[in-house]
Amino acid sequence: MPHFHSSDYQVSFGDCDPAGIAYYPNMFRWVDKTYHDWLRGFGGHAHLCAELGAVGLGLIDLKAQFRSPLRDGDHLQVVMIGMDWGTRSLLISYQGLVGERLAFEAQETRGVFVQKDGRLSAAPMAALRALAGQ
Amino acid sequence: MPHFHSSDYQVSFGDCDPAGIAYYPNMFRWVDKTYHDWLRGFGGHAHLCAELGAVGLGLIDLKAQFRSPLRDGDHLQVVMIGMDWGTRSLLISYQGLVGERLAFEAQETRGVFVQKDGRLSAAPMAALRALAGQ
Amino acid sequence: MPHFHSSDYQVSFGDCDPAGIAYYPNMFRWVDKTYHDWLRGFGGHAHLCAELGAVGLGLIDLKAQFRSPLRDGDHLQVVMIGMDWGTRSLLISYQGLVGERLAFEAQETRGVFVQKDGRLSAAPMAALRALAGQ
Amino acid sequence: MPHFHSSDYQVSFGDCDPAGIAYYPNMFRWVDKTYHDWLRGFGGHAHLCAELGAVGLGLIDLKAQFRSPLRDGDHLQVVMIGMDWGTRSLLISYQGLVGERLAFEAQETRGVFVQKDGRLSAAPMAALRALAGQ
Repeated sequence: MPHFHSSDYQVSFGDCDPAGIAYYPNMFRWVDKTYHDWLRGFGGHAHLCAELGAVGLGLIDLKAQFRSPLRDGDHLQVVMIGMDWGTRSLLISYQGLVGERLAFEAQETRGVFVQKDGRLSAAPMAALRALAGQ
Repeated sequence: MPHFHSSDYQVSFGDCDPAGIAYYPNMFRWVDKTYHDWLRGFGGHAHLCAELGAVGLGLIDLKAQFRSPLRDGDHLQVVMIGMDWGTRSLLISYQGLVGERLAFEAQETRGVFVQKDGRLSAAPMAALRALAGQ
Repeated sequence: MPHFHSSDYQVSFGDCDPAGIAYYPNMFRWVDKTYHDWLRGFGGHAHLCAELGAVGLGLIDLKAQFRSPLRDGDHLQVVMIGMDWGTRSLLISYQGLVGERLAFEAQETRGVFVQKDGRLSAAPMAALRALAGQ
Repeated sequence: MPHFHSSDYQVSFGDCDPAGIAYYPNMFRWVDKTYHDWLRGFGGHAHLCAELGAVGLGLIDLKAQFRSPLRDGDHLQVVMIGMDWGTRSLLISYQGLVGERLAFEAQETRGVFVQKDGRLSAAPMAALRALAGQ
């Protein structure tokens, strides 16, 4: 089962807001970092874009559910728990865990963006899927 | 129609990633800033938390759709286009616009979080709704 | 006197840390944004890099003095109060003001970075100075 | 020699700007994170503030020198290489290293901020120094 890539991050004071809780845009920094860390396993973003003639392997759609607060010092593990390859998109599901406690869930829909007729459009995923060995 | 609060932000170089496109967690900084700017119209977050005995007026759930890229220099306007008051949650819909171009849409589900039996839980929205004059 | 470029930013909840004070790396986001806003007046970073054959107009050295705290809602004005053109560097002095109150001072030393023999090095400033009309 | 506390961070795509180089305010996120990680060794920021009757253990002054660029994938180690205790301030020196390559140096001057007569002022460092066991 190749999907359970994960990355670790210890939440710090400066990641938190005046309520003492991690500022929510930062959670997506950690989700995005996990994704790029996964890409690194088969070349990394810059290399893959060069291979695919793409501008970026970016976001189409995002969903997230915040389950319990993250605070200064929490040892966060962001786990890719599922991956659903579509024709022109890839849906990746994540969990943000502190030990067994669920802090958040997130679902990113990603595309391979290519420049076409002066605008960005989503190319077929087959080439990325092959490079990812999936 | 009281819902069309908005805030303006000019995207800068440092908001963008190596693909030259605004790094997506930053979009939520601008969405969250718009929300807090709206709160400021009837007291601001700190004042409202004191009034409501709350720890924070934070996120339960988030959805976003990325429609076209934001780049260095873009004049972004984040508009609150809808507000749906539930019993214990508030759904706010946003559009991120550059002129007439739609850059992104986002839907935040917010709660009034109170400390209860050692954990955070979502209190009724009626009190916040009254303070917001809605 | 062409140096007194400035930019405005209202500090938001999410810019602040658990002490309720703006998280200090964010102040440099606002300083850097002011610099890029100034560049935009004579073409912007991407255009100037293309003109100059440069990779970036980036940082060599930074100094900052924190004078008084910035909080949620503060109307910050970042003002470029001085500019000192060296042969291969440009020293820019900033003040961060909330009305008449001084929140911080910062001094950025910037260079025009070009790729040379496989590494970045600082090119002469004369060409940028001419483009800036100074 | 108790000063050589360090923390590790792998630079990610989203930490970098359109020039492909880590956006400089992010370097201070990593410096600040190293500082807070050090505090955690003797109680952490929240606990120490409670002990000291302080609002925050924050910044008075900052200096940094950028020596070589950080890019996506770089394994950064931020090392506290020196600590100089003053009466009402603490000067901490850092190096940011990628293997043996020096990416940046930074010097933070920190104070113990207490609320006094309605404004923040810097308290004596002796109590923090004792708690830090130095």
